[in-house]
Amino acid sequence: MSQRIAIIGPGLLGTSIALAARRAGKLSIAIWSRRKEIIEELRQRRVGDLVAEELSVVVDKANVVVLCVPIGVMPKLAREIAPHLRPDALVTDVGSVKAPVVAELSAIFRQRVRFIGSHPMAGSEKNGHDAASADLFDDRVCIITPDDTTAPEALNEATAFWQMLGCQVRILSPTEHDEVVGLVSHLPHLLAATLVNTVAAQNPAAFDFHGPGFSSTTRVAGGPPVMWTEILCTNRTAVRSSAEAMIEKLREIITLLDRETTMNDFLTQAKDLRDRLRSTKEDV
Amino acid sequence: MSQRIAIIGPGLLGTSIALAARRAGKLSIAIWSRRKEIIEELRQRRVGDLVAEELSVVVDKANVVVLCVPIGVMPKLAREIAPHLRPDALVTDVGSVKAPVVAELSAIFRQRVRFIGSHPMAGSEKNGHDAASADLFDDRVCIITPDDTTAPEALNEATAFWQMLGCQVRILSPTEHDEVVGLVSHLPHLLAATLVNTVAAQNPAAFDFHGPGFSSTTRVAGGPPVMWTEILCTNRTAVRSSAEAMIEKLREIITLLDRETTMNDFLTQAKDLRDRLRSTKEDV
Repeated sequence: MSQRIAIIGPGLLGTSIALAARRAGKLSIAIWSRRKEIIEELRQRRVGDLVAEELSVVVDKANVVVLCVPIGVMPKLAREIAPHLRPDALVTDVGSVKAPVVAELSAIFRQRVRFIGSHPMAGSEKNGHDAASADLFDDRVCIITPDDTTAPEALNEATAFWQMLGCQVRILSPTEHDEVVGLVSHLPHLLAATLVNTVAAQNPAAFDFHGPGFSSTTRVAGGPPVMWTEILCTNRTAVRSSAEAMIEKLREIITLLDRETTMNDFLTQAKDLRDRLRSTKEDV
Repeated sequence: MSQRIAIIGPGLLGTSIALAARRAGKLSIAIWSRRKEIIEELRQRRVGDLVAEELSVVVDKANVVVLCVPIGVMPKLAREIAPHLRPDALVTDVGSVKAPVVAELSAIFRQRVRFIGSHPMAGSEKNGHDAASADLFDDRVCIITPDDTTAPEALNEATAFWQMLGCQVRILSPTEHDEVVGLVSHLPHLLAATLVNTVAAQNPAAFDFHGPGFSSTTRVAGGPPVMWTEILCTNRTAVRSSAEAMIEKLREIITLLDRETTMNDFLTQAKDLRDRLRSTKEDV
């Protein structure tokens, strides 16, 4: 399938989509950025066949449009591109929160083009197109979040698109998605940042003695604060519930400091579950 | 300096010491294991000049002896080797908890040979000699924990030993050590295991949707439960205090889910501190 793909926002994810699509043999990739210097850098790197700051030019003739901007900016951009889309275009996004985002974007695109939410579970604490790579999505889960109005063929096209980039596709409703990533993505971020700030509050000199365990456990705390503030606060209900459950479990493990046998059972359960996770590039 | 180094216990750390010492040009490395099959494997891998199950044979003529066994086993082995040591030998260990271990081992070796505690902040969730490598200690912090009875030249010799293996040496008292690693090593382990068990309790299906952030944040939970039970429970006072401080900070960040500006400040502080950490192999 030789299509035109339009990528709105050339950050880590958007640029990696361009590189992965190019690797897959896509002939035509159009990229939008609002910043002239980024446009110039992408042109010099020869990422994309067309890089421009006019949304209408970038989405013109596109078969697939991917919104790769912070979730707070998506509705405004969606309204701007909607009049310029091919009627058979498929629009998706890469936002980390789905229920409110999908509701708002679906309403904007309804009666015009097909929209379906996506969330590739890929990324890094690094951001920007410099950090992008063609293999960012290889073997990563991409969660696609159809709602009641999604046509089956839109789901099939979105699935084929993410598989083409290297992803393993999973399907969840937008609400299920937000609960699940509240646990396995947003809670880890909240813990990493909180661990760093706990050490800072208790004994900042202790940072100087950290080993590889601390590095791994806090890696994601290096991610962009503005983006993560938006994610955590938009998904606050699920995040709060995950964090409360974590506090409850922490109270449990604190009591096990006096009960070695049960502590060993607790750590053994965690190890068994951790060992069963699909291995990823970060494990090495 | 061409010395004999005796390594008591060829796990990940003990075997990596042997490999790093060999890389540094040490001519004579003796290794003790209680298990015949491990002895055979090490001999086949040609790790060490002498691999044996008789403690007296392994420590005979050793200038430096390193206890690389779980902290609960150290006192028994210390008592067994003490009568066989050269009077000018330096004994150290790699235990992750120092105050109680140093007190007990110092009492055993006093009047016989010099003892000083060490804790290389290196390792992995993997264990066993298969996972060992000559560069495990490169640029890692090794905390050396002298007490009131430590002679300056013992501290100098221990420092030179760990620097020879690649470490950056730092000095703390045994009690300071336990507080510091309670924050930057034991608390992260406790959080990683608790995060895994929280997801299991809330929604085990969510594991299937994890991305690289969850992998990093929980990596250390794959470590050996028996060893970590011993560490956490032996250092229970510092670990409990760190975990209580973490819970307090978690309560703070939960309230920030409704206050985006302050949440952004919280995440920005964490990112700034995280970015300033010495970069380690795990960061890439």
